[in-house]
Amino acid sequence: MTIPREMLEHLKEMVGTRFVLNHATEMLPYEADGLTEFRSPPALVVLPKTTEQVQECVKTCVRFGFPFTARGAGTGLSGGAVPAPGGVVISLSRMNRILEVNYQDRTAVVEPGVLNLELSELTSPQGFVFMPDPASQPACTLGGNIGENAGGPHCLKYGVTVNHVRALEVVTPTGDLVTLGGARGDPVGYDLMGLFIGSEGTFGIATRLFLRLEPAPEAVRTVLADYTSIAEACQTVSDIIAGGMVPTALEIMDRRTIGTVEASALAAGYPVDAEAVLIIEVDGLPYSLDDQVDRITEICRKNGARSVRFASEESERKRLWAGRKAAFGASGRVSPDLLVQDAVVPRTRLAEIVPQITEICDRHGVKVSNVFHAGDGNLHPNIGYDRRNTEETRRVKEALAEIMAVCVATGGTITGEHGVGLEKVDFMPLYFDRATKEAMSRVRSVWDPTGLCNPGKVLPGEN
Amino acid sequence: MTIPREMLEHLKEMVGTRFVLNHATEMLPYEADGLTEFRSPPALVVLPKTTEQVQECVKTCVRFGFPFTARGAGTGLSGGAVPAPGGVVISLSRMNRILEVNYQDRTAVVEPGVLNLELSELTSPQGFVFMPDPASQPACTLGGNIGENAGGPHCLKYGVTVNHVRALEVVTPTGDLVTLGGARGDPVGYDLMGLFIGSEGTFGIATRLFLRLEPAPEAVRTVLADYTSIAEACQTVSDIIAGGMVPTALEIMDRRTIGTVEASALAAGYPVDAEAVLIIEVDGLPYSLDDQVDRITEICRKNGARSVRFASEESERKRLWAGRKAAFGASGRVSPDLLVQDAVVPRTRLAEIVPQITEICDRHGVKVSNVFHAGDGNLHPNIGYDRRNTEETRRVKEALAEIMAVCVATGGTITGEHGVGLEKVDFMPLYFDRATKEAMSRVRSVWDPTGLCNPGKVLPGEN
Repeated sequence: MTIPREMLEHLKEMVGTRFVLNHATEMLPYEADGLTEFRSPPALVVLPKTTEQVQECVKTCVRFGFPFTARGAGTGLSGGAVPAPGGVVISLSRMNRILEVNYQDRTAVVEPGVLNLELSELTSPQGFVFMPDPASQPACTLGGNIGENAGGPHCLKYGVTVNHVRALEVVTPTGDLVTLGGARGDPVGYDLMGLFIGSEGTFGIATRLFLRLEPAPEAVRTVLADYTSIAEACQTVSDIIAGGMVPTALEIMDRRTIGTVEASALAAGYPVDAEAVLIIEVDGLPYSLDDQVDRITEICRKNGARSVRFASEESERKRLWAGRKAAFGASGRVSPDLLVQDAVVPRTRLAEIVPQITEICDRHGVKVSNVFHAGDGNLHPNIGYDRRNTEETRRVKEALAEIMAVCVATGGTITGEHGVGLEKVDFMPLYFDRATKEAMSRVRSVWDPTGLCNPGKVLPGEN
Repeated sequence: MTIPREMLEHLKEMVGTRFVLNHATEMLPYEADGLTEFRSPPALVVLPKTTEQVQECVKTCVRFGFPFTARGAGTGLSGGAVPAPGGVVISLSRMNRILEVNYQDRTAVVEPGVLNLELSELTSPQGFVFMPDPASQPACTLGGNIGENAGGPHCLKYGVTVNHVRALEVVTPTGDLVTLGGARGDPVGYDLMGLFIGSEGTFGIATRLFLRLEPAPEAVRTVLADYTSIAEACQTVSDIIAGGMVPTALEIMDRRTIGTVEASALAAGYPVDAEAVLIIEVDGLPYSLDDQVDRITEICRKNGARSVRFASEESERKRLWAGRKAAFGASGRVSPDLLVQDAVVPRTRLAEIVPQITEICDRHGVKVSNVFHAGDGNLHPNIGYDRRNTEETRRVKEALAEIMAVCVATGGTITGEHGVGLEKVDFMPLYFDRATKEAMSRVRSVWDPTGLCNPGKVLPGEN
């Protein structure tokens, strides 16, 4: 279905001709997000500058019956920003102003197109940061973080995006303007803000974000331990948590990841004969940390760690982290394509799940390496393949589906931080019974009565 | 409307005759909750023991067209557990088992009728607690905490109930059984659990609670400062927060409260000529606290505190807190009836709001004293009166309505922790615009299509 002339003219007049894209080449970047496997060309891309323009974009789409999808920086990893077939992309990249920062109230008011890191860079000289720090932090937008309820390494200790938002101004799927949450003070009535955050763009478009700032940690300590068994590393993680500590990061890499990293230009000096490497980071007031590091070291040794190194200097910390940060890049280097999944299992079941993942991948003839946020049981099985090889691609997908099923059977879930999007929509029945899925569908239907707001995402059988 | 014989017999057969109450005297305790001003006699009280029985109670009410209201211990302070006229009370007090505690995963699974304090008493010998600690902690149920999204002194640092729940098994208003949230791992899809928590019993009945446990703080320090002006005490609070510290409590009492406390049998030794007393409590690892206490003391003095006392010993801490804890009781002693409100303003506006509250009350000839959770801007204007005096009661209500309006105009909200319930339902339009209220109504209508689930609460014009 092509865009009617009347609709096109109206949008151009409203936002300005050069902010309405309708040539195939201009629109190419909007076909996919960070999960490039899913692609769909938009019929039109509109770039509004104000809340009123966003309202008018939505109302226009509804009036002419076109599905629409909001888009931030397109760094998402589940296809959440891929337009529905023949749909309109509403890009929020021009709504990129930091409107207000108040250090006494610890709040910031921003537009959705502001980059996550931009805010913390502005506030950190004053000792404050916006805590959620997804891996894509330098590139992703705060509006996108709201849509996906983004996590990040710090979320084990500090919580995910929803814990750092006070209120949202939202254009609903019918073009109304509402304010959800409490711009100041506690919210009253139903927690529609909480419902909106993480709804992957299916409940409308946030146009103004009222965020919390937190004091930046005064000091940080990083510990690296290596093991001859994955189970020992996992047990260490459980014992640290059971010991009453909440590190900011608890990251495990398996032998294959270590080998790949050490064979790359980014070698971090990890012992290549180790079955697992565990990185532990704690933050807080400087002198509270030495004691924590002592207790952590003791727990590592008790669980069979061969060596324990620690760092408080920034340069040494960076060295310990270098390998972890390089893990995905290094895996990408050895295969043309890479699929990273983010299923979750209870932390205490990690030790039994990791060998099962290896077994599943071996059985399907697929090469997997494991890097995971062990603190919250969030797995990242990392599968290299060549997507031009359709038979291999099929085996990869079969293996991933089986991994998800095993994770759910162990009491886990299908996604820890990337969202459902298009990627996992068919796996939702693994996790939800009929009644719960229907409860979700009903809530969606009252938010979006016309079904035009980012259809096809989150719930199976929609659209 | 009386309960049909068929309905009565069915319920008796299902839960047992002695667990269906239908005599006026038996049902008297179920007429009101902690806000005794609102009363409504139920038509029937049913006390189910299992999830299946709760489902059948709900289905039976729906089949015969009776409104129903779930009730925990009835300690709420906004009339949320008051039955609708002619309605059925479903009391959850028999569902009071702690089903599972897992210290490695830091989780507990409980039934809704378990008392809040009961859980922490069980787990604290192992060093863990359930963090939300409303003032009614020894008496209120965890199911009730879910319904009201209860806070408590610790919530400034640790968050409210919703931050400590992993998942809920819920009987919906149509009697279906759903599981919301992630019993283990992160939840997937829309955050219906977050929507449910704090919905004041209007979205169904939680029958099984999957809770988080947190390590109990290793050490606590309490500081008491006194001031010759409320503004100085408020500025101290803002400066402590802006300084990057998050105390567990920041409580202010005004001159009238101090006078009332000191004239009572519970005198705590507060200086009666002070305009304000500020109690600050910090917790954490023992040796991190001394430095925080030093910094806090410096901030207090810089803001004009006349004296600063501190305590680390339990007995001395209790002494500093005694007056604060006695404040409501002591106020009750001087008047036959007492109304406590819980409006909220931005923390940085406290200093200007408190004199306005005094001015409003003076103008209406009403006696107010102020005690407030200053850290989160949660006011508790405390108004003593005699409800047999209808003219005085009217003036009290007028003053309270005016206080709420001023708080909202300052960027605050109408309730910080007690909920909307029946008490504040008419004030919701102060805070919400039409579009937001309609969004809430629509969501409610899909959760509760028959409108029988605790009608009359939260939203105006429902029922």
